[in-house]
Amino acid sequence: MLSKSTVKYIQSLGHKKFRDEEGLFLAEGPKIVKELINEIPALIQSIYCVEDWLAENRNLPEQIKVNVVSESELERLSQLTVPNKVLAVVKKINTHTIDTKDKITIALDTIQDPGNMGTIIRTADWFGIDQVVCSTDSAEIYNPKVVQSTMGSIARVKVIYTDLKEWMQEQNVKKYAAALDGDDIKTIEKIKEGIIIIGNESKGIHPDILKIVSEKITISKTGKAESLNAAVAAGIIMAQLRS
Amino acid sequence: MLSKSTVKYIQSLGHKKFRDEEGLFLAEGPKIVKELINEIPALIQSIYCVEDWLAENRNLPEQIKVNVVSESELERLSQLTVPNKVLAVVKKINTHTIDTKDKITIALDTIQDPGNMGTIIRTADWFGIDQVVCSTDSAEIYNPKVVQSTMGSIARVKVIYTDLKEWMQEQNVKKYAAALDGDDIKTIEKIKEGIIIIGNESKGIHPDILKIVSEKITISKTGKAESLNAAVAAGIIMAQLRS
Repeated sequence: MLSKSTVKYIQSLGHKKFRDEEGLFLAEGPKIVKELINEIPALIQSIYCVEDWLAENRNLPEQIKVNVVSESELERLSQLTVPNKVLAVVKKINTHTIDTKDKITIALDTIQDPGNMGTIIRTADWFGIDQVVCSTDSAEIYNPKVVQSTMGSIARVKVIYTDLKEWMQEQNVKKYAAALDGDDIKTIEKIKEGIIIIGNESKGIHPDILKIVSEKITISKTGKAESLNAAVAAGIIMAQLRS
Repeated sequence: MLSKSTVKYIQSLGHKKFRDEEGLFLAEGPKIVKELINEIPALIQSIYCVEDWLAENRNLPEQIKVNVVSESELERLSQLTVPNKVLAVVKKINTHTIDTKDKITIALDTIQDPGNMGTIIRTADWFGIDQVVCSTDSAEIYNPKVVQSTMGSIARVKVIYTDLKEWMQEQNVKKYAAALDGDDIKTIEKIKEGIIIIGNESKGIHPDILKIVSEKITISKTGKAESLNAAVAAGIIMAQLRS
């Protein structure tokens, strides 16, 4: 039986203010929780799950506090419209320093949609790109919708927030900007090192940042849509640019 | 001043049952409504907008009934969390027959997330692919979330729903299936004609459909994510496969 204070505490982690205060975030659903258990077991503080899930996940690391709850109790804890068997309370992953040498790095300039942010992190993870640098006004990585849409890749991809322009100026590698008026990505030499910058969903990349890029790249358009979704554009660029 | 019955009627169009009965759907926001006015003006039945929007859109086709409403009235009509200046009530676009010869066609097997469905249609439109065939259990094209995420491409891309397996068997062109165990898309000859099949978000393509494809294709993975988002995968395939 869950206490009212536990329910209130976990619900509060749906809000950034409380996540920041507690240094914790929420992750839900068997797929994502399984990835977190595999990748960052030491950071999982507690798990709230239905009996079914526990029956299929017997060998959990000892330090994780497991609480079996009913479906209706899970519903009270969950941030999802349809709760999905298990919810984990996880310690925030420490901010990492990022070294851009000999690596591909994704830079996100004001990506505001949580689904786009999470999907870009998941896509980077697919392509073996393990670091993402975000402008401070991008969606928060621990927003439950971002966590969900990373599908567990949050445990593998390093994400930092910083003044993107300043940070970019300090990096001594090539910088590629996704833009509507750049060179066709198919004509650009494939890379093993560099920063790929993806801009805001409606405004694109900030003019101050565009000034310091090495190359503007475009996904050539043969149809009529005005733009591509930011996560789709990021995926196409990652697929075509990495060597 | 909006009557209660008008509010109720427009709200009812948020539900599939009423959209089917009335043969109408809703589209919201300046970008999408502008695309619909440009592409399918004759299908727009009425517009509910704030004064600001009307001031910037004076030359509307005569047959469109325009109603100026207050922000708070628009809020009552809108399906969006944050209403966006204008809402259009639009007649459903007639189902088209689709000819696969000399064209690229996208086939969606049980794409259930409305955002994925809309984003795939938008991406197809970017690449000049103007026809999408969906299994009957895919998300409904007139679902407000699908309409929003097409960003207006719903007005240009033909979408039909059918028994996908039967339909595929009748098509005399090459059929490419996005799968985890196919040939690397980079090694496959680029095409001007063929059907590209995208499968369900968690289950992939139905085994019965996989049996009748010509070629399985894969976006090669160098990292650790278990899968790609369906719309991102569709975008990468469209970008790389079309000649």
